[in-house]
Amino acid sequence: MNVYIAGVGSTKFGVLPDRTLQSIAAEAARAAIADSNIPPARIGCVFVGNFVGGIMTGQELLGPIIAADLGLSNVAAVKIEAACASSSAAARIAYDLIRAGAEDVVLVIGVERLTGASRHALTTAMTAAIDQGTEGAAGLTFPAFWAMVMARHMHLYGTTREQVAAVTVKNRQFGVRNPLAQFQKQVTPDEVLASPPISDPIRRFDCCPATDGAAALVLTNQTLAKHYGSPAVRIAASVLVNGPARITDYDEITVHDGTVHAASRAYEIAGVGPEDINIAELHDCFSVAEIVDSEDLGFFAKGEGGPAAAGASSVRNSKLVINPSGGLLSKGHPTGATGCGQIYEVVMQLRGRHPNQVPNARLGLTHNGGGTAAAVTVHILESLR
Amino acid sequence: MNVYIAGVGSTKFGVLPDRTLQSIAAEAARAAIADSNIPPARIGCVFVGNFVGGIMTGQELLGPIIAADLGLSNVAAVKIEAACASSSAAARIAYDLIRAGAEDVVLVIGVERLTGASRHALTTAMTAAIDQGTEGAAGLTFPAFWAMVMARHMHLYGTTREQVAAVTVKNRQFGVRNPLAQFQKQVTPDEVLASPPISDPIRRFDCCPATDGAAALVLTNQTLAKHYGSPAVRIAASVLVNGPARITDYDEITVHDGTVHAASRAYEIAGVGPEDINIAELHDCFSVAEIVDSEDLGFFAKGEGGPAAAGASSVRNSKLVINPSGGLLSKGHPTGATGCGQIYEVVMQLRGRHPNQVPNARLGLTHNGGGTAAAVTVHILESLR
Repeated sequence: MNVYIAGVGSTKFGVLPDRTLQSIAAEAARAAIADSNIPPARIGCVFVGNFVGGIMTGQELLGPIIAADLGLSNVAAVKIEAACASSSAAARIAYDLIRAGAEDVVLVIGVERLTGASRHALTTAMTAAIDQGTEGAAGLTFPAFWAMVMARHMHLYGTTREQVAAVTVKNRQFGVRNPLAQFQKQVTPDEVLASPPISDPIRRFDCCPATDGAAALVLTNQTLAKHYGSPAVRIAASVLVNGPARITDYDEITVHDGTVHAASRAYEIAGVGPEDINIAELHDCFSVAEIVDSEDLGFFAKGEGGPAAAGASSVRNSKLVINPSGGLLSKGHPTGATGCGQIYEVVMQLRGRHPNQVPNARLGLTHNGGGTAAAVTVHILESLR
Repeated sequence: MNVYIAGVGSTKFGVLPDRTLQSIAAEAARAAIADSNIPPARIGCVFVGNFVGGIMTGQELLGPIIAADLGLSNVAAVKIEAACASSSAAARIAYDLIRAGAEDVVLVIGVERLTGASRHALTTAMTAAIDQGTEGAAGLTFPAFWAMVMARHMHLYGTTREQVAAVTVKNRQFGVRNPLAQFQKQVTPDEVLASPPISDPIRRFDCCPATDGAAALVLTNQTLAKHYGSPAVRIAASVLVNGPARITDYDEITVHDGTVHAASRAYEIAGVGPEDINIAELHDCFSVAEIVDSEDLGFFAKGEGGPAAAGASSVRNSKLVINPSGGLLSKGHPTGATGCGQIYEVVMQLRGRHPNQVPNARLGLTHNGGGTAAAVTVHILESLR
């Protein structure tokens, strides 16, 4: 059965100090339900993608609490967690349930509250996605992981500091026009290079910020989407795989097996290739991640992501625009919400209603990673216009 | 498509101070996989039911980490959370995926580590299942919730302190012979009544303990279970519903809508009634909960649960045995693991291999609740012998 995204909703991503997890989740959910034209009573499942609601706010059981806030009773409501890929993983399970006919309408919500905590508390929360029995105990953090990836990528492929900085410059430029983005301010290459060191060679402007936010999707089948006149987009593929859960399990730290496998499976299911994709919202938690991911997703050969980011002619897919939302670097990274937020952005592009509209966008891809690429989702979405 | 439980596994429930979440989860999972006879490579999804791994141990991303420990790659691995009903909720989603043909084999693991923390830390963790924006901020705890339920039940129906104590006495008696149980020691009615007050009228021996443990299930379809010769049990119904998420939303605190609705839907799907059930593993987090739940599940009329627990003749279903595992009161309550643990116990009964074997057990029911009955699952399992 064809699976459609019938409606989408999102709060602003940013610093929302006066809002609870519950209230921003409900705001995004109500917007998505209204957008879909589907009566709330048709919803059979509520999946809440969330990573560290427990650690950061002391709140779990978000499924039933948010469902109750939305006036939904007797639905199957749970939280689904896969670190920074939580809500796209939830979308994958919802997709499977609808595709097979087990459910008719599933509400998928991504939500996180990360601001207002100390740096120490935030780092402790984020490293919950690193195995505390091994690499967590050894002190590994995500800036350190990506710094190792970046140093290795520069060593192996001659990627330059300037090429990596170009990712931030591009994504910040896109962020200027995205009203949902946490950062709506341009930066220059010199500002990136002069920003304070975080974990060498990563500097502050190479990092996405900590963010509060929520985004939501209503998934349904083709029949109901047509019946209710939903402004639908088709899910051509939805894939979730696990990759190595520890960096010591990597053969080569610049190749993320989870992304490679998720992408190849998604292309096969959708019957398309990386050369067919018009827009990609990929997981640029750090600027170098966009380079690595764009290679692992097949957009560029391994080692060509750096020159491609800097606008060099090695670009394989000249019609592709990467992170026209501004990406995590501009929109911010409300971890549990990011996956649904990426899908929100691609849906808006495929409807032709995005503030940074890519002309004639017909096929969009989202890529969302949890941990050290230990959980990876790839979605391919197709315009029905 | 008929959905079967092809294999089950469990660690001992109790105080496991030297074990990580990951290691006990993997132990239960390996046992379930071996029990099923199904090759691990057939597993497409790994669902880890867990409530407070983040708050208590700082560990999230349990899906990919445990999948990697089991040598599984490119599977869809996530954590599913619904407070104390986390792993039975995960089983419900796995059931739906297999029933509809979206997946062939799903590994469902429940796991929790609760011991070793201060009482304050444990209470903080448990109240993550209460809305922190309302009743959590007001100081509500689970002993207080169930104390209100118990006081009201005594007031409305004349339930006596002795009848409630009889639940603990019965379940502790069953626990003596269950090697997986945390408590394997009998208690007398006088010992229950003389135990220290916790939240009046609840006393210490009315409460289940905090527990470490893991249990796992391998779910598959009829075809594969037969192909691999699995010692299978059929899932006749698997239901998850949300009930009121705040006690202020209850019409009557001694009637838990979530349980009533989940049970009536499960009986309808399975085509049976409460009078057909031979064994029930229900959520006796406090002794009075067994009385309330046994009424809401339809085993006794409302108000008759107390006399029934005390062995009076008002028992509607004389062939029914409740919590022959010893229940949460004896086995302990490793919150995220409890749902799978209950299913483990019923499967062993339906295979005729339980230490407290109920003769001719053919139909078993599990009931698992999260929060103030905000998330409720009911499973009905059928013997294939």
